[in-house]
Amino acid sequence: MSNTANAKLQIEKVKESRVSSIDFSDLAFGKTFTDHMFYCDYKNGAWQEPKIVPYQPMTIDPSARVFHYGQAVFEGMKAYKDDNGKVFLFRPDQNFKRINKSAARLAIPEFPENYFFEGLKTLVNMDKAWIQPGVGNSLYLRPFVIAIDSAIAAAPSESYRFMIICAPAKAYYKGTVRVLIAEKFSRSASGGVGFAKAAGNYAAQFYPTKLAQDRGYQQVIWTDADTHTYLEEAGTMNVFFRINDTLITAPISDRILDGVTRKSLIQLAADNDIPCEVRPIKVSEIVEASKDGSLKEIFGAGTAAVISPISAFEFQEQVYELPEVNEHSYSSRLKSKMLNIQHNLAEDKNGWRMEI
Amino acid sequence: MSNTANAKLQIEKVKESRVSSIDFSDLAFGKTFTDHMFYCDYKNGAWQEPKIVPYQPMTIDPSARVFHYGQAVFEGMKAYKDDNGKVFLFRPDQNFKRINKSAARLAIPEFPENYFFEGLKTLVNMDKAWIQPGVGNSLYLRPFVIAIDSAIAAAPSESYRFMIICAPAKAYYKGTVRVLIAEKFSRSASGGVGFAKAAGNYAAQFYPTKLAQDRGYQQVIWTDADTHTYLEEAGTMNVFFRINDTLITAPISDRILDGVTRKSLIQLAADNDIPCEVRPIKVSEIVEASKDGSLKEIFGAGTAAVISPISAFEFQEQVYELPEVNEHSYSSRLKSKMLNIQHNLAEDKNGWRMEI
Ligand SMILES: Cc1ncc(COP(=O)(O)O)c(C=O)c1O
Repeated sequence: MSNTANAKLQIEKVKESRVSSIDFSDLAFGKTFTDHMFYCDYKNGAWQEPKIVPYQPMTIDPSARVFHYGQAVFEGMKAYKDDNGKVFLFRPDQNFKRINKSAARLAIPEFPENYFFEGLKTLVNMDKAWIQPGVGNSLYLRPFVIAIDSAIAAAPSESYRFMIICAPAKAYYKGTVRVLIAEKFSRSASGGVGFAKAAGNYAAQFYPTKLAQDRGYQQVIWTDADTHTYLEEAGTMNVFFRINDTLITAPISDRILDGVTRKSLIQLAADNDIPCEVRPIKVSEIVEASKDGSLKEIFGAGTAAVISPISAFEFQEQVYELPEVNEHSYSSRLKSKMLNIQHNLAEDKNGWRMEI
Repeated sequence: MSNTANAKLQIEKVKESRVSSIDFSDLAFGKTFTDHMFYCDYKNGAWQEPKIVPYQPMTIDPSARVFHYGQAVFEGMKAYKDDNGKVFLFRPDQNFKRINKSAARLAIPEFPENYFFEGLKTLVNMDKAWIQPGVGNSLYLRPFVIAIDSAIAAAPSESYRFMIICAPAKAYYKGTVRVLIAEKFSRSASGGVGFAKAAGNYAAQFYPTKLAQDRGYQQVIWTDADTHTYLEEAGTMNVFFRINDTLITAPISDRILDGVTRKSLIQLAADNDIPCEVRPIKVSEIVEASKDGSLKEIFGAGTAAVISPISAFEFQEQVYELPEVNEHSYSSRLKSKMLNIQHNLAEDKNGWRMEI
């Protein structure tokens, strides 16, 4: 799996940082980017010299394959700052592995491990003034790869650009989240690309999500495409259910993204004696559990929000409300454990933090 | 369905055409583009002024949503020239309807009908020197829409670019086509975006198609994602089967693209007393028909190649060879009927040609 390459990272710094002009208290997610970006082009069968340059628009042909065939994959990760100004990544090895797994499924060449980590660390270090300390603040890091061949034949590109851009972030989901359980639309097929962070998976969810939003639901929980019987995941989050005192989450498959937050929460549950089952969950099971009062919590888990408690779900035109979250809720307890590890406020016994 | 807008088309011509420098006898598909391109931006809730400008690269932010979430749709159509230099489109109304159907599923605003046709006709007319006369030659037209917001939140873009670029084309598939019938990978899910020309549908096929190619098959024929029991379509073609004297093609569903070639062939079959059934087809049915000698032909149908005869298929590690194509084959007969209509060499009793 591991691969390395040996060109030297080239660096061009901005003349003047824009950081002092940013109002960090009023920041829409993903619209403001830091001073620099990382990129590395693939051509003639090899990844070329990696570079860090001032953040800037790019020039690309209208025939670039990414525009026509969606040959693109991405990652989402965060850098955190503690009160002493130390900067940490959270399990970046997982994101590196996953972007290459996604890339392989989309016929994109894998990116060298040393370029990924050197690029990421150098970039975050150069732009660390953009990371606000304090739990809830972070720098969202977006590695991605796009097919840039100027050719519209429906076949894999011969040239690619790998990039990392960075956006200062606060909590991603605001307020309570009500969800609609999918009964008609679906997110991915068995044998398809649902397990990959493939660009096209996301646009495919926009319209059904918009329909849900028009009816007062922020997110859709996807079910299996054939029978809409089993609960799978949300648009950008895996999902956990608490019935009585047991957490349950669906197993990973080729339709479900193997979330870093999900796998970390499964471990944290074990570390904290919270029973957690990884097994298929029927919609009917949570409907029944809601009716008999044993369904205590549902929450989404993903890098953006860490944990998003869900306050209600709709299925077959019935709305099921969930109990209010309090400090004893698993969602509250696990979220603060995760945040404390990420922000260097708690012991990291699983070795998940990487200091920059 | 129909919608119109009323800004005037702005035109900026090239100083000098590149057409005389092109070797039309040696042209790779989709790598050479004509002198001009059409574009129109959507912002502040409306499509802005449509423009035709010299073909050129574009400037776009690395955070553009198309790169991250694959929010993009496209069309593929052709312009043909007859021996008197008249230029025709083939059923462009179908492509217009389909791009807006694709757009709606991807939460992209629909494009105005008058902008589409005025842009298309004016552009083809300006670049008609790029269309070679003669059956088999054409100008491939690629309308497409991409999400261009500089923002990486996973939600529909607020700004888009609609473009049309044009590439001179010869026959797309060369030689005989051997196909692998999908048993593990799949192209689309029920409730998904398979019926749309969504960018991400195509990249998702690259890897499985590459695996097939490594084993000597040019294309994959996709089956239903759940059971791999029913034949659906190929990567960029619908598929027809001839058993004895009857043509059979799968019905359209939300997993299958409603091909213009497919629907035209169904009509041409009716016009020419060729029995044609539109119904689900099991893989086992064609395997049996191949064994007992009643399977006479399989061919793909799409704008690029019109008709691509298939010479063999593999399923469950068995290879089934098909009889050789001759001039009595349905594929030969229907292909020449289509080409003759497209190139103004035959009567157009269904009113499919649109002269420019
Ligand atoms: C489809 C999908 N599921 C789940 C997740 C959560 O994954 P992670 O915890 O690695 O952020 C994401 C996140 O980014 C996602 O896109």
